[in-house]
This record gives sequence, C-alpha cells and structure tokens, in this order.
Amino acid sequence: MQGKGKLLKVYVGESERYRNKPLYQYLIKWLREKGIAGVTINRGIEGYGQDKVVHTTRLLELSADLPIVLEVVDSAEKIEEILPELCQMVPKGLVFSTDIFIHKYGK
Amino acid sequence: MQGKGKLLKVYVGESERYRNKPLYQYLIKWLREKGIAGVTINRGIEGYGQDKVVHTTRLLELSADLPIVLEVVDSAEKIEEILPELCQMVPKGLVFSTDIFIHKYGK
Amino acid sequence: MQGKGKLLKVYVGESERYRNKPLYQYLIKWLREKGIAGVTINRGIEGYGQDKVVHTTRLLELSADLPIVLEVVDSAEKIEEILPELCQMVPKGLVFSTDIFIHKYGK
Repeated sequence: MQGKGKLLKVYVGESERYRNKPLYQYLIKWLREKGIAGVTINRGIEGYGQDKVVHTTRLLELSADLPIVLEVVDSAEKIEEILPELCQMVPKGLVFSTDIFIHKYGK
Repeated sequence: MQGKGKLLKVYVGESERYRNKPLYQYLIKWLREKGIAGVTINRGIEGYGQDKVVHTTRLLELSADLPIVLEVVDSAEKIEEILPELCQMVPKGLVFSTDIFIHKYGK
Repeated sequence: MQGKGKLLKVYVGESERYRNKPLYQYLIKWLREKGIAGVTINRGIEGYGQDKVVHTTRLLELSADLPIVLEVVDSAEKIEEILPELCQMVPKGLVFSTDIFIHKYGK
C-alpha cells in the first residue's frame, strides 16, 4: 500500500457509548474488522464541538468527556466504503478526510 | 456544515502566556467567542520549533514548556477571517492550514 | 518560511529501538540535526498498524508499545530530501505526507 490515500479523522466524546461499549473502543474494533489499514487514537486535553461546551482536564466536572480523536488511514476507495456506516455511528461527532500520499506502510 | 472546509493547526508552548492566561487557554476561549465550529487541544510529549530547543517529558527542566497543538475546524471563509488576528497572538508559534472535506458535523 | 509546505506524519511503536535508543527519540534528534523546521511528538492511547494488533492503555500487556506519532513540518523540498533515509529507519512504521499552507513560523 503506497501512493495516494486518505486520512480520516473522527472526533467523539470519551463518554459516548455504543452498544454497551465506549464508542471509540467500538469504532476501533469495527474498523479493524473491516480490514482498515491503520488506526491511532488520541485523547485531547481540551476541546469543544457543535454544542460549544468546552470539555477540559482543568475542570473536574467537564473532564469526564474529553475529546477522543481517531486517525484512520487507508486508500480512498476503502475509506469511502466505510464512511456512510461510520457517520451513522457518530451522531454527535465530527468526521472529515484529507488527501495524503503514503510513502511507507510496514514492510 | 458539510463539504469543503479547512483544518488549521496552531502549535504553541504550554508556558506561553497572553493577557495573564496560558496562551492556549486564551485561544480556545477566543475561538469559541468567534463562533468557530470545533477546536481540539493536544499536549505533545516532545517537540521543537523555530528555536530548535527540544522540549520533552524526559527532562524535568524542559518539560515545563511542552508543545500544545490546537486543531481548529471550520469553513475556509471562517478560517481566513480569523487568521490575521490569530497569527498576531502566537508570535513564536507555528500556524498552518490544510484542505479537508467535512463528512459530518454533529446532527 | 511561509507559503506552501509539507506535513509528514510518522507512526512508530513506543518500544521500537534504533541504535540503542528508542526509535522516536533517535528520529527527533536526527530530524533536528538535518535542520528540519519543526517536530512534535504525541503518544496515542490506542492503535494498530500493519500487524493488526491493537496496542492499548487498557491492557497492561499491550500498553508497552503504544503508538507514537511524529508530526514533521518543512518545505516540500526539505521533506523530500529526508524521506528515503527516514523510511529506511522505520521498517514497521507508517509514513505519509500532506500539503499544507504555512501562515506563520515563529517571528
């Protein structure tokens, strides 16, 4: 897998749940089952989205729902294939993609 | 808000201050007041910028100024509107943007 | 340094080593010596790559090799110059680049 690809970024809240599981844990499991090439998850220290509530490590009551960011990498075709179902799983989240050029993917 | 957009990334030092506040905390407040769609903040574990000093969690004396990265998402017009003022607020920082395609933003 | 540039993202495992050093620490030192404009390193909380093993902070035995992400920023020429050697240093990693527009880089 080299050449043109897509980076998909998915932003959800840490406390969001899906089928009795934290949403982001469900998503990584689901993406792996779909055969997606690579996924990395980060937890932000602060952020806000559509509802404009700032979640932050600085305030205890707002630190329970910190932003979780998934970086999903694969070919454009593979990313487009999973997008409709993925977008339905993240009702409150932000999902965007950008074009990348993959120079190396493992051996 | 769907379709073409911009991702703006802003890199500052954790110890930088602006008007008696940590700079990155001032920035997220300011971006929210400007009505920017979404902001996520991450703290890096290591990094360097223009002055080429590596700040790292591995060395106590250099861990007080870890890199802070703001990811700012909105339409191209909105991002361009705030850029001049934003750039003045981050004298030492790195600011860059990239084109994105927004597939989902909340409900 | 303003105008068109490249963001290079490099994903490695925290436990990977190179010349008696953690690989990511070797890389930041090497990139600085090459005169690269800016580097930021993040540690993910979870992720998988080519071998499809999910490394996660949630399982002790899989938390020793969390994903490490380097964000490397410079001009397209400078990034292309270092790419061949860099790709050889990360046999198991993912390396991709994307076009950016640099609005500000320090003073």
